[in-house]
Amino acid sequence: MKTIKIALDAAGGDYAPHEMVKGAIKAVQELGVEVVLVGRKNVLRKLMEKSPIKSGISVIDAKQVIDFNEHPIRSLQNKPNSSIVIGINLLKSGSASAFVSAGNTGAVVASSLLTLGKANGISRPAIGCFLDVLTSRPALLVDAGANSDCRPEHLLEFARMGSLYSKYILKIPFPRVGLLSNGMEEGKGNRLTQDTFQLLKEAKDITFIGNIEGYDITRKTADVVVTDGFTGNIVLKTIEGSNDNFLSSMRELGHVFSSVSRLKTRDLLRDIGLGSWTKKLDFSEYGGACLLGINGVIIIAHGRSKARAIKNAIGLAKETVERGITEKVKEEKYEQTSGN
Amino acid sequence: MKTIKIALDAAGGDYAPHEMVKGAIKAVQELGVEVVLVGRKNVLRKLMEKSPIKSGISVIDAKQVIDFNEHPIRSLQNKPNSSIVIGINLLKSGSASAFVSAGNTGAVVASSLLTLGKANGISRPAIGCFLDVLTSRPALLVDAGANSDCRPEHLLEFARMGSLYSKYILKIPFPRVGLLSNGMEEGKGNRLTQDTFQLLKEAKDITFIGNIEGYDITRKTADVVVTDGFTGNIVLKTIEGSNDNFLSSMRELGHVFSSVSRLKTRDLLRDIGLGSWTKKLDFSEYGGACLLGINGVIIIAHGRSKARAIKNAIGLAKETVERGITEKVKEEKYEQTSGN
Repeated sequence: MKTIKIALDAAGGDYAPHEMVKGAIKAVQELGVEVVLVGRKNVLRKLMEKSPIKSGISVIDAKQVIDFNEHPIRSLQNKPNSSIVIGINLLKSGSASAFVSAGNTGAVVASSLLTLGKANGISRPAIGCFLDVLTSRPALLVDAGANSDCRPEHLLEFARMGSLYSKYILKIPFPRVGLLSNGMEEGKGNRLTQDTFQLLKEAKDITFIGNIEGYDITRKTADVVVTDGFTGNIVLKTIEGSNDNFLSSMRELGHVFSSVSRLKTRDLLRDIGLGSWTKKLDFSEYGGACLLGINGVIIIAHGRSKARAIKNAIGLAKETVERGITEKVKEEKYEQTSGN
Repeated sequence: MKTIKIALDAAGGDYAPHEMVKGAIKAVQELGVEVVLVGRKNVLRKLMEKSPIKSGISVIDAKQVIDFNEHPIRSLQNKPNSSIVIGINLLKSGSASAFVSAGNTGAVVASSLLTLGKANGISRPAIGCFLDVLTSRPALLVDAGANSDCRPEHLLEFARMGSLYSKYILKIPFPRVGLLSNGMEEGKGNRLTQDTFQLLKEAKDITFIGNIEGYDITRKTADVVVTDGFTGNIVLKTIEGSNDNFLSSMRELGHVFSSVSRLKTRDLLRDIGLGSWTKKLDFSEYGGACLLGINGVIIIAHGRSKARAIKNAIGLAKETVERGITEKVKEEKYEQTSGN
């Protein structure tokens, strides 16, 4: 089997380029992939001098960097030599099978749309993000932020793409689709979700379980949580804020108890089975979100990603390529379109 | 000073009527208020037989109960003798100064609107809910669920009412108003928040600090978090779900460490200053949310409220009456209207 080659935006994210390079090295060592670092060649070459591995990583020069607060479309026009533009072009030319970036999400989405195009039959690509929950099969939130204003038919697409992704990545045969709303009953919600409810109820290719509420997210009532990108983004960041608070207090608590019991925090947490749990609340274990509905595999990593998160994002990219999700979305949509 | 009389829906909520009666007794004992229990007279009289206090609590008969899943408007029409309808009528007739309910929120909102009416100049009453955060001055979320579909001018009203409430209840002279969005920058958001941003920026009677994101909520960046009732309700319940998970694991962790260190969980948590913190994550410490923009004081308690939460909700009702928030909203709106 041919080694999968993954392009990594080495210039995007809070800890670029150092942690990107470290993450790439980890990925090559642990996941058996090849990584193409896209960023300032001289800087990356210098960082690679200290690398324990001599093969599996290459460098492609990208002289420009798109910052976090830049306007997506304008930044693409102004910076044709940015790591995002050059990295996504590697997919277009077939030089890489996936692109991973912790940089400006809007620019990654816009550049993917412009360069790779939408998958057949998809009108609105969306971000599918695994949520930190307490089970081994995390819920997938779609859309986590690509589309601020949506129509019901877009949410139906999100439900379909999310179901496919959940099915092939998490191996859930019939993922339960829940529509995020402000009440369980069919009549509850805003105009968007009320109209979407009817479409989801009639769709034969998904397993719709009805409306779900905010607290259902962490209770893992649904495998796929469908919502517009505005609400999805706010929910995601609200959970992140809560988890951050929680994790820091757990560490604090652990330190105090360690001093009482003379055990190490990590050992204590592990002994009572909470080690894996705090791990699950840590976004870096997931590594990234997938841009669904694009002709190519694009993984959006968290802006605060360090080496481990980057390695995990590359792992998600590898899985997504191996399971041929992009092709499956195309096929599925084709069947559906021809069926109408 | 005349004792404040508060009507309590003794039939609404998961733990009615037992915990309602217990909460009322606590409130009379600790807060120096009078409580009117509204519910099935015979049942309440029986429960009151065991009461340690003989004055300060009275009973008003209400033979019907509106369930959680009933349609708000229809339930009001079908059940004119429900505890919600009768309780709110006590405000109308001047027999009580506030009404507290852990029952069907939609029915409480609808009945308040029909019976008491909107405050002068307010087009959309909204639910203002204090969020469990780590500081002594919790952020106020408006709207926490009364209005699923909103226009920008409604969100401006929420910002104004929230500022007033925050100012008089929490004594914050110039509450910082943040608009909940999916990005910090002015251009970010959906159509609703983009248009609202302009209105809030121009409003002279509030202290607008711009967009805030999901994780800013727990970081306490803003004193008043403005959003539509659909998003607000989802955010509130998402936080509740996270906190529930967290609290149960803290208890679990506490038990394990207690067995190691032979100290009580509560003592341990208190010793390291986390007791007050877990308390702050517990919705029952807040007790309730206020329905803003209504001609009367209506406090909506959590459906899962037990005695302590009910006592705290009655406390919030007392504070709201004492500080004359309803009158202040009227005055404020009058000034604003005449100024145009």
